Amino acid sequence: MKKSFDFYFDFASPYGYLASRKVGALAAATGRDVNWRPFLIGAVYKAHGGALLAHPLKSDYVFKDMFRRAKIEGVEGMQRPANFPASSVPPSRLAYWIERQDPDKMGAFVKAAYKAIWIDGCDTADPNAALDAAESLGFDRDDALAGAGDQAVKDRLREVTETALERGVFGSPFILIDDEPFWGGDRFADIEALYG
Amino acid sequence: MKKSFDFYFDFASPYGYLASRKVGALAAATGRDVNWRPFLIGAVYKAHGGALLAHPLKSDYVFKDMFRRAKIEGVEGMQRPANFPASSVPPSRLAYWIERQDPDKMGAFVKAAYKAIWIDGCDTADPNAALDAAESLGFDRDDALAGAGDQAVKDRLREVTETALERGVFGSPFILIDDEPFWGGDRFADIEALYG
Repeated sequence: MKKSFDFYFDFASPYGYLASRKVGALAAATGRDVNWRPFLIGAVYKAHGGALLAHPLKSDYVFKDMFRRAKIEGVEGMQRPANFPASSVPPSRLAYWIERQDPDKMGAFVKAAYKAIWIDGCDTADPNAALDAAESLGFDRDDALAGAGDQAVKDRLREVTETALERGVFGSPFILIDDEPFWGGDRFADIEALYG
Repeated sequence: MKKSFDFYFDFASPYGYLASRKVGALAAATGRDVNWRPFLIGAVYKAHGGALLAHPLKSDYVFKDMFRRAKIEGVEGMQRPANFPASSVPPSRLAYWIERQDPDKMGAFVKAAYKAIWIDGCDTADPNAALDAAESLGFDRDDALAGAGDQAVKDRLREVTETALERGVFGSPFILIDDEPFWGGDRFADIEALYG
């Protein structure tokens, strides 16, 4: 079986968005598959009490840094979403519904939903942005809307989030490769140096 | 007058140590001088309530990541200091005493004191490690010990720390270049891309 790594991220995370654009290249460089693991970073903050963006000082910095990084990485038009920070339950659940339908489409869905949020500025908490992304990949909108409400899908997101906590994930993006933790897209080069 | 940038760091910060080894190259790449600005990160945490290493999860991660980074950056023998986290008042004050004696030696002192802490594992709160570093640069040990207690030196450290807070510094290392903030040694490449 081909080896893989776990790519944990929250759809409300700007650094997660930037990382999602590079994670395919990291997979190629390490000869591994990506396990797409959207989770709810709010659960980490609830458990550990440390919200990365809770302080306005850090939040202001992150937005400044994020736009600089986007520019350096050649990403055009990145913007602060309509509602931030907001729940990322709708795209996360939809991602796990798609995982059940066609796991090969999960990555494409993540990228489309992330683009809707961080380039088009959609509200993460509004299910329509995620549904549009699913529709663009050929899924039926009504099926997707119903599917995102399935108990099994809800349970999957809850389980992934709990597992992330248990495995020591405390930020987004966060990669676990052979159980080694790497926090942040700025560690991709390290992963490549050590596992490439 | 030659342009410069401000390099803020706490001697108890492992990422500050790694950054101190690269900051000279950054100065060369940007054609600027380094303003060495040891400060007390504890004042930031006191003001804003967010201690980076307060949570064991993050602290464990940081030590793991720090050793990996050291390896990738070719730094041999990095180790957790004898007492961590501890006050970095002694080396910080001594740095500002040296700034008054011979500002050109401040960088060499910072590097020597940082090496004592993060390579030799000395306690940041123990004045002897900093005094050894000063002595190795030709300063008289007794003068240095007395000088670190000067009111003007104490005031200088307090003032730098207060100014750091006012300027939005919330971590170590932290660079302000033309008042633009960059947090972390992993942003040196960005500074070079934008100001090089």
